[in-house]
Amino acid sequence: MNLPTTTRPVLSDLRVLEIGHFIAAPFCTRLLADLGADVIKIEPRSGDPVRQWGEMIEGRSLWWSMHGRNKRSLTLDLKSQKGRDLVVRLVAHCDVVVENLRPGQLGRMGLGPDVLRRARPDLIFAHVSGYGQTGPGRDRPAFGVIGEAVGGLRYLTNHPPGMVDLPPVRVGVSIGDSIAGLYAAFGIMTALWQRDRAKGDGQGRTVDVALSESVLSMMEGMLPEYGAVGKIREPMGGGLPTAAPSNAYPTADGKWVLIAANSEPLFARLMKLIGKPELIGAAGYANNPERVANAPKLDQLIGDWSRRHEADRVIAMLNDSDIPNSKVYTAADCAADPQYRARGMVRDVPDKHFSTVLQAGIVPHIPESPGTVRWPGPDIGEHNHEILTQLLDLTPAEVEALEKEGVV
Amino acid sequence: MNLPTTTRPVLSDLRVLEIGHFIAAPFCTRLLADLGADVIKIEPRSGDPVRQWGEMIEGRSLWWSMHGRNKRSLTLDLKSQKGRDLVVRLVAHCDVVVENLRPGQLGRMGLGPDVLRRARPDLIFAHVSGYGQTGPGRDRPAFGVIGEAVGGLRYLTNHPPGMVDLPPVRVGVSIGDSIAGLYAAFGIMTALWQRDRAKGDGQGRTVDVALSESVLSMMEGMLPEYGAVGKIREPMGGGLPTAAPSNAYPTADGKWVLIAANSEPLFARLMKLIGKPELIGAAGYANNPERVANAPKLDQLIGDWSRRHEADRVIAMLNDSDIPNSKVYTAADCAADPQYRARGMVRDVPDKHFSTVLQAGIVPHIPESPGTVRWPGPDIGEHNHEILTQLLDLTPAEVEALEKEGVV
Repeated sequence: MNLPTTTRPVLSDLRVLEIGHFIAAPFCTRLLADLGADVIKIEPRSGDPVRQWGEMIEGRSLWWSMHGRNKRSLTLDLKSQKGRDLVVRLVAHCDVVVENLRPGQLGRMGLGPDVLRRARPDLIFAHVSGYGQTGPGRDRPAFGVIGEAVGGLRYLTNHPPGMVDLPPVRVGVSIGDSIAGLYAAFGIMTALWQRDRAKGDGQGRTVDVALSESVLSMMEGMLPEYGAVGKIREPMGGGLPTAAPSNAYPTADGKWVLIAANSEPLFARLMKLIGKPELIGAAGYANNPERVANAPKLDQLIGDWSRRHEADRVIAMLNDSDIPNSKVYTAADCAADPQYRARGMVRDVPDKHFSTVLQAGIVPHIPESPGTVRWPGPDIGEHNHEILTQLLDLTPAEVEALEKEGVV
Repeated sequence: MNLPTTTRPVLSDLRVLEIGHFIAAPFCTRLLADLGADVIKIEPRSGDPVRQWGEMIEGRSLWWSMHGRNKRSLTLDLKSQKGRDLVVRLVAHCDVVVENLRPGQLGRMGLGPDVLRRARPDLIFAHVSGYGQTGPGRDRPAFGVIGEAVGGLRYLTNHPPGMVDLPPVRVGVSIGDSIAGLYAAFGIMTALWQRDRAKGDGQGRTVDVALSESVLSMMEGMLPEYGAVGKIREPMGGGLPTAAPSNAYPTADGKWVLIAANSEPLFARLMKLIGKPELIGAAGYANNPERVANAPKLDQLIGDWSRRHEADRVIAMLNDSDIPNSKVYTAADCAADPQYRARGMVRDVPDKHFSTVLQAGIVPHIPESPGTVRWPGPDIGEHNHEILTQLLDLTPAEVEALEKEGVV
């Protein structure tokens, strides 16, 4: 490894304009900003509504400190002609626009691709929406939970049919929005590479990412198996369709321990540990297909053992037997994990409002020129003056006049 | 929109070597291949074990048709010196190597970054692993389900504490592997952009993606809120922590319908529809925080209504009342969805073994130069001759000799 280390993150010369709100587009731009891009986030003067989400301290969202980090905030009233004119002038200085309004809404506001590409012909224009920019269903209500259901994820996130009288569960976070935002970031970089590389074509491109499609693309063999043999993939609770035992098991102190003992030697070691050596090689347990068929019984036996001990003890015994396992991590476990700490994936970020905020680090890790948290989520319009005077050459007096008018 | 349409997908001039197996690295390379990259997948002569996963027809996995699509398969025995020499020679022709062996394993085989960068100094070297290439925990067993648990996802994918005596559920697919693969694809493109752009630095880089970290990065306000106020985010079943009603509700024909009626007008329309107009504005239901506190009772009332009708009828009534909803899609629903069909996101792909295979389309959609499915998952070693003769200038006789020796 003789690569020179530069201190500049890999996207340092990239400028991105975000006309987004909530999660998907802002998550996309967080990823780009984490790796060094200059992201300008356009917000109404009332701020992105996501600034009010989750736990707040003195009216400020803790999540925002992470969700908005490394971005510059510029307030603009897009309902005013002057505000829209400023967007067009800004676009001339940007490589990429990322938006997640309803499909077609930017165009109706006079900020469609035709207008923005006059200002910046080689613009990469990324759209994140529920169902895509085209097609008969593009105007369906773009609630994240609906997109996840349409993508096939919600149905599979459940106990097996008939086992419980409760509905399938949500993953607990807006996973579909985040996956769509990540796909958008990937698509943007592919288009930039083709545009900017020495042998590239110099062309702008559209990146059209749908939340539902982003989820569907991760459904593995679900479609191929349905198409060929009519198989409808069914939920499996905490287990795996092809290997057992693998599940989360309860402990005496009300925690869960995940155990993955789904190979012959691992299964044998686990059975010895829980005092059921007679099941090793026994009919019904002799191989993975038999164990999958008997998974509920097997899970019961393992759970009967695990719930007699506290989680730390269960884990110690599993480790002694060299059986892959983990506590099912809560926020507290993630925060305390030494591996996360060693890699900067859990870090304290200085924040003027909160002193410090515990944040997730930067993915992917690029050791030669790692991404950084330069600053946490900014105040609404914190960078108005800086952006308008430095990038658009407005005078401070002009900026103040626009502020008085309510444009900025 | 006056952009010229080219028929060449955006990554057509990129070449990628995959030394991967199972899901994460192959998912990463599928994304690159879908957008036109030439992906050479190195496999043992027994093939990637994932070729045996899921439903099979005559010994062939249906999933593989999608998971391996657009890639070229080259068999190489990496335990032989001749096999490793061929890898090094191939790397000289590649922009990127993607691998997901255990951390350090490639180096122990004599194929570490120092060796490969002698062949290709500006190589982008992407590693996907459970916990990263560095740190005290890098050698933990890299089971996907464990990485998801360590990322904090498994704990949140559950009914609220105390509601059910069953463990948290798995999402139903290996979501952590796929998210890590997508992060790797994004990271690779950022490094390529910086290397190849006209003003770039021409340098190779390392992309170090961990499954656990990829999941953790999507946990929203979980870490900030724990760090500042000690809040441990708890699972919410099918509901949302900040808005109600939003859940999946049962129907008379055993299906689920997702209803998102979490605004004042939507809530009012839903209450009228289910015959409970007296709850509109009533104490306990007057705003979102009150409704969230009463969500179990509200879900019960809505479920009592929904389970009296079949899903199609429930959906028709919700649509008539303009309330956002969706059937919770199974594989069959995804396959039949007109929006997916219109956008090519569900498509029949010709496959010589299966006639056609139903596959998910290509994300992201780049309309000016869309990705394509050029061919489905190849046979083991299908491209041995083509790659070794055309790329490495071996003679057919030399290839045959290597095959006889068991190197290829």
